[in-house]
Amino acid sequence: MRASLLGFCLSVLITGAASAQSDPLPAWNDGAAKKAILELVKTTTDKASPNFVPPGERFATFDEDGTTWVEHPMYTEVVFSLDRVVALAPMHPEWKDQAPFKAVLEGDKAAMAKISKDELMKIIAVTHTGVTDEEFDKITKDWIAKARDHRWKRPYTELAYQPMLEVMQYLRANGFRTYIVTGGTQPFVRAFAQQAYGIPPEQIIGTAVKTRFDTTRTGNAIMLDPKLLLNNNYAGKAEDISLFLGRRPTIAFGNTEGDKQMLEYTTGGRGARLGLLVLHDDDKREYAYGPAQGLPETKVGAFTQALYDDAKKNGWPVISMKNDWNRVFAWDEK
Amino acid sequence: MRASLLGFCLSVLITGAASAQSDPLPAWNDGAAKKAILELVKTTTDKASPNFVPPGERFATFDEDGTTWVEHPMYTEVVFSLDRVVALAPMHPEWKDQAPFKAVLEGDKAAMAKISKDELMKIIAVTHTGVTDEEFDKITKDWIAKARDHRWKRPYTELAYQPMLEVMQYLRANGFRTYIVTGGTQPFVRAFAQQAYGIPPEQIIGTAVKTRFDTTRTGNAIMLDPKLLLNNNYAGKAEDISLFLGRRPTIAFGNTEGDKQMLEYTTGGRGARLGLLVLHDDDKREYAYGPAQGLPETKVGAFTQALYDDAKKNGWPVISMKNDWNRVFAWDEK
Repeated sequence: MRASLLGFCLSVLITGAASAQSDPLPAWNDGAAKKAILELVKTTTDKASPNFVPPGERFATFDEDGTTWVEHPMYTEVVFSLDRVVALAPMHPEWKDQAPFKAVLEGDKAAMAKISKDELMKIIAVTHTGVTDEEFDKITKDWIAKARDHRWKRPYTELAYQPMLEVMQYLRANGFRTYIVTGGTQPFVRAFAQQAYGIPPEQIIGTAVKTRFDTTRTGNAIMLDPKLLLNNNYAGKAEDISLFLGRRPTIAFGNTEGDKQMLEYTTGGRGARLGLLVLHDDDKREYAYGPAQGLPETKVGAFTQALYDDAKKNGWPVISMKNDWNRVFAWDEK
Repeated sequence: MRASLLGFCLSVLITGAASAQSDPLPAWNDGAAKKAILELVKTTTDKASPNFVPPGERFATFDEDGTTWVEHPMYTEVVFSLDRVVALAPMHPEWKDQAPFKAVLEGDKAAMAKISKDELMKIIAVTHTGVTDEEFDKITKDWIAKARDHRWKRPYTELAYQPMLEVMQYLRANGFRTYIVTGGTQPFVRAFAQQAYGIPPEQIIGTAVKTRFDTTRTGNAIMLDPKLLLNNNYAGKAEDISLFLGRRPTIAFGNTEGDKQMLEYTTGGRGARLGLLVLHDDDKREYAYGPAQGLPETKVGAFTQALYDDAKKNGWPVISMKNDWNRVFAWDEK
């Protein structure tokens, strides 16, 4: 008994030692992006390095849509909002004659394709407010547990990119705290980020509405109001990182123009810093889109040629999904 | 050599074991407040308890002024602001004829006592904005290293209450994350909270101004602008805790009407929760003030009779500095 326990312990130790030497990023092919990540972690965690960053000061920020999970052909939160319009319709009989709700309720794809940005904001406002933060959390958790994407028929949380999950784990194992910094709303992403990425609610920075402490409810509550407090896109990402962290990240990942300022802010700091951009160029395993390199333009993921040029100029590695990732999803065949 | 090393290790182990059994809150006298804190920690960290809270979900929030350090007769940040008016005066020759700056520059105490709340806001705006967050951090660090309080002639960071430092350490040792939730400004408190309380910048929630990502500066920067983004007082404390943490704290400490909503929000949640209020009733070792129990009224620390009644009604222990604390400061004689 004791001998077998000892044997077990030894095998655990040996396995542990072996895995410590093995590749921490197995879904990544060797290339400039992988090399840059490994080198950044090495130089910032080595006490003898001039770039050493104390553990409490190691922060990594990730855009979500298109960076840590699929955003094409429609942001997951937009799908949620449209489903929620349908769910709320019985309480809003007037919607059946009102744009943009009419199009959504009738499932009129041609009319839905014409929904303007302002109309979309109207949809997001009515579907994300008028409830408490705790109620909205439950609404989102219920939805994400049941909803399936149209292509793979899987829960959206399974559309997280395996290489990015590996990077998050690798960074956390090296004393980094991982944050999502998303243009999506903070209460939405908070509801599933622990499950999808192992990232807790307090490490989600997102677009946020004003709230109101309501003491008339049993046990009191935080009401979500339809007024914008933080627009966590473009410069807002840098500003909100300062608001939440009080300092620049060491490493940041994005995929669009809306992430550019986060990468500029990150790499504008002293010492070793790294910004990286995901390029969607894999139409077989995922999608290929964005003006950079002549890929088709879409409503999501504006990886413009200007951003591509910025990446070159600033030394931000561009992650080619096609070439840099040997696996896109955890459930992909290798 | 080896024997002495072994002896050293043994003595460390023995000392460690002894201190694990000793009182984690030695500056606290036995009483309702100390008992409530110990019981809250016991019931939320015991896996067999129905009130068990997983480690990642244990949050403790502390008001700062009057709760974790001295606020009388003037908030430290107001002292900083007045000093900064003097420092900035050469760049603002017009101030010598302008209220409220004239009174400050002339050190006219009678006129300064009459400075209105709006005028104070004006002073805070000009002394806290127009610089980057990194510049403001340095300005505050430089000031706090040199400034001394008028009564004890000590750095303000030494005016932290020893019993509250013990509570913070005790909570952290039990898997809680400790946050400052202050009406003071976030960039100000961030500059010294690590040194004063062992609390890092990302765990400071405070009053915040709007910022602007400025790419024209070398390496870019976050500019502090003179527009209010978060007023972290009263209901704002509950709302901002939701914004930063996405959930209710398990335990919260305050000392005024401005902390009431934070305590309501904390204790409004399910499971075991605790709110506590510090009462300044020790005119020998610190100060005695606030309308509760007939103490003199002041500009700081409005511990009203209504708040006192609320505490009774809600079961929030009131911490009497005089009776509950056998030591106020780390440097106090016992």
